[in-house]
Amino acid sequence: MTIALYDLVGADEARPFSPHCWKIAFALAHKGLEFKSMPVRFTEIGKIETGAFKTVPVIRDGERLCVDSFEIALYLEDAYPDRPSLFGGEGGKALSRFVEKWAQATLTGYIGPSLLLEIHAALDPADQAYFRDSREKRFGRTLEETAKGREDRLEGFRASLLPLRLMLSGQPFIGGQTPLFADYIVAGFFQWARVISPFPLLAADDPVAAWFERCLDLHDGIGRRVPAAC
Amino acid sequence: MTIALYDLVGADEARPFSPHCWKIAFALAHKGLEFKSMPVRFTEIGKIETGAFKTVPVIRDGERLCVDSFEIALYLEDAYPDRPSLFGGEGGKALSRFVEKWAQATLTGYIGPSLLLEIHAALDPADQAYFRDSREKRFGRTLEETAKGREDRLEGFRASLLPLRLMLSGQPFIGGQTPLFADYIVAGFFQWARVISPFPLLAADDPVAAWFERCLDLHDGIGRRVPAAC
Repeated sequence: MTIALYDLVGADEARPFSPHCWKIAFALAHKGLEFKSMPVRFTEIGKIETGAFKTVPVIRDGERLCVDSFEIALYLEDAYPDRPSLFGGEGGKALSRFVEKWAQATLTGYIGPSLLLEIHAALDPADQAYFRDSREKRFGRTLEETAKGREDRLEGFRASLLPLRLMLSGQPFIGGQTPLFADYIVAGFFQWARVISPFPLLAADDPVAAWFERCLDLHDGIGRRVPAAC
Repeated sequence: MTIALYDLVGADEARPFSPHCWKIAFALAHKGLEFKSMPVRFTEIGKIETGAFKTVPVIRDGERLCVDSFEIALYLEDAYPDRPSLFGGEGGKALSRFVEKWAQATLTGYIGPSLLLEIHAALDPADQAYFRDSREKRFGRTLEETAKGREDRLEGFRASLLPLRLMLSGQPFIGGQTPLFADYIVAGFFQWARVISPFPLLAADDPVAAWFERCLDLHDGIGRRVPAAC
């Protein structure tokens, strides 16, 4: 049965952009599972299925509902053990948490503020009001003030990717010779940026950019089906 | 047969301090393998065994010689598959490379320069000359100049541990409920600092400090056998 992936979108339903939803789109494709992206806007998240969810991604797999990207990946690994593994064993599961937290600290911290205005511009009016209000409360200042200066911080952001860059000199994916969920955790954030903004997060000659291109090629180019923002 | 671990020391043979050698001491203990620490000074590394080695750790296991901490861990995992795993599967092996590079970028970058003078002070005279010469070439200035300002950079260093700190809110070890080689990769660096210097790298209430204490408790307290510097 086709799995439903509740997938965050803005005004254009064909451009899902949430990093966490993209992690799961990649993970479902990795497992070779058929799924349907169900577009949902920020202000519609509370209406998904039972109405109990506050975040996406949420998936419905038959009777089973599951929320939170890491929990969904664990569920898929358990429910479909004969499909390609997302973790490569218990050690991979545990260490993927480290990658998740590294991505949260390093990628969200720069990309989130930097994309605020372009995310806002991509939303429909009801979501725009919600987004401005919630993010201005979170950051304690206007979207415009928070987004300012991304060019000045870009060099520091690129430098903060050093662990990934060093690792890529020894193996093509975080998962080794082939990708694992850890790759999708990180790729989800770069895909978020790619779908939302033409701002050049990565220098063209950065090995991290080459790795992300490899990720976009995976699973019949599922990541490329949404064209980059321009 | 007892495995020989060539283990970097200074003037005091009872205080091995290399982060990379400590990774392997922890790993050997994790595997429950008997080993003997063979003290070696910087200027003696070229005289180990066949004379072909330029770095430690090196281990001799029967007829087998192995160099480089990650390679040694992979060797131990292959050679002793019935002992507790260091990686928890192939995914854990691949992702441990990410942890290694994170540690290299984040921990070596701060701890290395910060400890230079205390490492120098711990060495015997022949090693002191080698150490000063090689490190001053590497950093392009005197040891004193490089080590200066560690207090000013401490806050930034502690902030850079955020991925580890966030992860520890969900699990007690990088390896999950129990440690894996990834824990020893990171613990090796904190042990290096602990053996060399009383400088307080971590705030006492930092979850990273609590994790490191747990690491020191492992395997009959092998990490605590060398008292902290004072």
